Amino acid sequence: MYNLLKGKKGIIFGALDDKSMAWKVAEHAHAEGAVFTLSNTPIALRYGTLNELAERCNSEIIPADATNLKDIENVIEKSMEILGGKVDFILHSIGMSLNVRKKRSYDDIDYNFMMKTLDISAISFHKVLQTAYKLDAINEWGSVVALSYIAAQRTLFRYNDMADAKAMIESIARSFGYIYGRDRKIRVNTISQSPTLTTAGSGVKGIGDLLDFTEKMSPLGNATADELAQYCITLFSDLTRKVTMQNLFHDGGFSSMGMSEKAMHQYSKGFDNEQ
Amino acid sequence: MYNLLKGKKGIIFGALDDKSMAWKVAEHAHAEGAVFTLSNTPIALRYGTLNELAERCNSEIIPADATNLKDIENVIEKSMEILGGKVDFILHSIGMSLNVRKKRSYDDIDYNFMMKTLDISAISFHKVLQTAYKLDAINEWGSVVALSYIAAQRTLFRYNDMADAKAMIESIARSFGYIYGRDRKIRVNTISQSPTLTTAGSGVKGIGDLLDFTEKMSPLGNATADELAQYCITLFSDLTRKVTMQNLFHDGGFSSMGMSEKAMHQYSKGFDNEQ
Amino acid sequence: MYNLLKGKKGIIFGALDDKSMAWKVAEHAHAEGAVFTLSNTPIALRYGTLNELAERCNSEIIPADATNLKDIENVIEKSMEILGGKVDFILHSIGMSLNVRKKRSYDDIDYNFMMKTLDISAISFHKVLQTAYKLDAINEWGSVVALSYIAAQRTLFRYNDMADAKAMIESIARSFGYIYGRDRKIRVNTISQSPTLTTAGSGVKGIGDLLDFTEKMSPLGNATADELAQYCITLFSDLTRKVTMQNLFHDGGFSSMGMSEKAMHQYSKGFDNEQ
Amino acid sequence: MYNLLKGKKGIIFGALDDKSMAWKVAEHAHAEGAVFTLSNTPIALRYGTLNELAERCNSEIIPADATNLKDIENVIEKSMEILGGKVDFILHSIGMSLNVRKKRSYDDIDYNFMMKTLDISAISFHKVLQTAYKLDAINEWGSVVALSYIAAQRTLFRYNDMADAKAMIESIARSFGYIYGRDRKIRVNTISQSPTLTTAGSGVKGIGDLLDFTEKMSPLGNATADELAQYCITLFSDLTRKVTMQNLFHDGGFSSMGMSEKAMHQYSKGFDNEQ
Repeated sequence: MYNLLKGKKGIIFGALDDKSMAWKVAEHAHAEGAVFTLSNTPIALRYGTLNELAERCNSEIIPADATNLKDIENVIEKSMEILGGKVDFILHSIGMSLNVRKKRSYDDIDYNFMMKTLDISAISFHKVLQTAYKLDAINEWGSVVALSYIAAQRTLFRYNDMADAKAMIESIARSFGYIYGRDRKIRVNTISQSPTLTTAGSGVKGIGDLLDFTEKMSPLGNATADELAQYCITLFSDLTRKVTMQNLFHDGGFSSMGMSEKAMHQYSKGFDNEQ
Repeated sequence: MYNLLKGKKGIIFGALDDKSMAWKVAEHAHAEGAVFTLSNTPIALRYGTLNELAERCNSEIIPADATNLKDIENVIEKSMEILGGKVDFILHSIGMSLNVRKKRSYDDIDYNFMMKTLDISAISFHKVLQTAYKLDAINEWGSVVALSYIAAQRTLFRYNDMADAKAMIESIARSFGYIYGRDRKIRVNTISQSPTLTTAGSGVKGIGDLLDFTEKMSPLGNATADELAQYCITLFSDLTRKVTMQNLFHDGGFSSMGMSEKAMHQYSKGFDNEQ
Repeated sequence: MYNLLKGKKGIIFGALDDKSMAWKVAEHAHAEGAVFTLSNTPIALRYGTLNELAERCNSEIIPADATNLKDIENVIEKSMEILGGKVDFILHSIGMSLNVRKKRSYDDIDYNFMMKTLDISAISFHKVLQTAYKLDAINEWGSVVALSYIAAQRTLFRYNDMADAKAMIESIARSFGYIYGRDRKIRVNTISQSPTLTTAGSGVKGIGDLLDFTEKMSPLGNATADELAQYCITLFSDLTRKVTMQNLFHDGGFSSMGMSEKAMHQYSKGFDNEQ
Repeated sequence: MYNLLKGKKGIIFGALDDKSMAWKVAEHAHAEGAVFTLSNTPIALRYGTLNELAERCNSEIIPADATNLKDIENVIEKSMEILGGKVDFILHSIGMSLNVRKKRSYDDIDYNFMMKTLDISAISFHKVLQTAYKLDAINEWGSVVALSYIAAQRTLFRYNDMADAKAMIESIARSFGYIYGRDRKIRVNTISQSPTLTTAGSGVKGIGDLLDFTEKMSPLGNATADELAQYCITLFSDLTRKVTMQNLFHDGGFSSMGMSEKAMHQYSKGFDNEQ
């Protein structure tokens, strides 16, 4: 631990349980000296174990539906009250698709569900940014990070309308990053993380084999939630002040791979079975 | 003219008047031997001059609100009736932002407007694709094109939530392009066109100076609507069958420029004025 | 056939035998009404069957080592003599790595070989462009295309220093494309083609399994040499005048795929074998 | 200062004087607890002030021509001797174009100069990586960084063959990053830095106006050499272990900008002067 976030205040959206990426970020931010509030939906608070984390980090939990402007306003205002002033960092780790949950494939999408996917998984990020902007809630040289996935650039079957939501959240980071940089000297980025087995993701069919593929394709293997948290810390720290409007791949090299020896080897094994 | 689209049938969404990109595509498609229907919103039909185009191209006009599934279904079914079978190409040239129109800046967005922007400018493309998929309305080796803009990758001040919509439409082209390619051997692409002075775009403040900049930055100058139409023809033709899920820049080279001599020269002139 | 290249003159570098991509481009260019010269190294002329192609296309063959400026000058000057004036298009389909041939892996590269790889596979493109520029050998609105591969963006094991050469050739297309566009209204692009089983490529170890993978990953399957030739024709035609400085993927969608159902299915088969 | 590099050993190539980016990296690495050796060419050692830096950082200087394999071997072996074991990080900040220096424009390149540009500015990175690989000179979870520039993706007039060299160095980072990741758990990345006024760069004609443009286009302004150094520290630290094969923009947002209000304003000023 390096005291990289000593004296820094933040808000962390989206921790559910100890498998959550936001949970790990909170743990590491705490260890690095930050104070912060935690927010998730009332239903997530019921099903998850966020209290445990809050206790360990001396954090307060502020429930909020991240699609609801009033709720977001409340989170930000309360956070400033609790933390005693503007914040220095915000993590947005929120995403959900009803089309995925209800097994509506991408060629049979329910458009009300799609609107919800976008609202929860992408527009909520704009709402957080816009609300914080209006409330002037982030300190100069603050840092905002949202989580993304390579599906924003490359199609993965079954990832469905979450791909479109991720493309949009990366666009929002650029569009609002321009304004935040210009007016407030604040940076806004997304991290495109390896597929990670969270509680939310663990139900996805065939996720095991996909994780094996990305593990074998990535020269350093898949990035874990813990490693993601460490990377987040660097982006919240004062050492990355001129990095903004970027989508940063944190994936063990996967995004720059066309084919690895290991993955090809595994792929080729399948042929032995075919006689 | 080369008879590149001889025997081909299509649907063209979004022609308003003779400045429209879709209008030019229709003219060129007609000249290349295609037959097609035209569609736009009832209000556009009233304010534009689409009848003139329809007459010249022997086309029928089918009014539709492109956010309305029933309307889209009607366009596609009627088109198959009129044209005597499945279509070979579809052009989607539809986009509008109420936030832009109502001068709501990107840090003061109205979220109902944003939802409308997305529905009209991006999700409408998914609706066209999904409806055509369910109706099995496109022939094998058919081609679908939607128009995009470099704002999907790089922020331009004042372009507002249209940037997010364009990022999303490019994602939809990829996501649905996978399914259409896999199941039907049909390609789906977007063209990222130079800024073009259409009737819709001409009201944007400062558009003249931006067009001068992109003209001077692009080694071949801005691409015109006529040139776009020619490019579209190649993508509808049988010569580009393995190009799919791509965003294709048609911009005189702008997207690959960091700085041109001409643009730098113009930029530097401003300093003479500053003493 | 559409007479897309009627009246157009060109130079085609790199055809060896009827499996070559350049060979297919020549056949299609001929069918579309173009006249052109053919060039390859003296040794390739001995081992290949280029005479057959030349006869069929009424073309003359001009031998040249594409790393030799005098030879390139000779090809271009002779071509203008033979064809009766400036040319309208040039295809560069040249590439070779001694490190690959001599099985020097990328962590044990011979740097003289690497220099040769770069000279043959990338700098030769600059030499052709610079020589044609100095000789003013290309007509206004002419079109130059070089072939590339996705290894320029994503690492494939065993592709070795050819990846660096491809990254460089794409850069040369941009750098010189700016000058050609600005000064001569000529476009310069690269096509990033699916892996293709040419005579040159067929010796590469494990190429069969890789082709199976890209075939299953690409929703439209791998693009063939014939399809590449058709795509080239559109880029040489007058219909793509404002496309320049681009790297254009012609790969059945591979470049925009993260994971397909088919490829995942094949990948998963390997696990059955492991008990 | 955070002790982020406490106990870490490194090699820093390319510091000349206190305007150099490598110089700043050395200062910050020293402050963060690292020990390292410094290397530059004999001629740079004569003209620069590297002794001063070496003294301040308790570093030894090992002269080397970075295109010479024996010299590189010597740097790496001596460094391990001096530092007492394998190193944890390497910085490559080396680049030079004789075509630029001798004012040979990109359409009148001297190819021997170009080979030198590539050897000095790109292949030297491969030579460092390959030599370190063969000597097994980098610890597990070590980190290698080379500096790049956006000219690798977008053409800037006058940047000349350095653009091709930068495209190549980014490719080398990917190609060798795969091998280092797979075999040694070591990451290799490039940082694409804002244009920076170093002693090497200050002679470039028109650099002042270009810096003004990039300053006004970048929402956070150009990144300084000091800020670059801070960013480097995060990449050398243990907090970014799964970031590899990436080109990371450190540019105040420039790479994601299409047009900013400030730059447009300055651009438009030029028109006032034109009557």
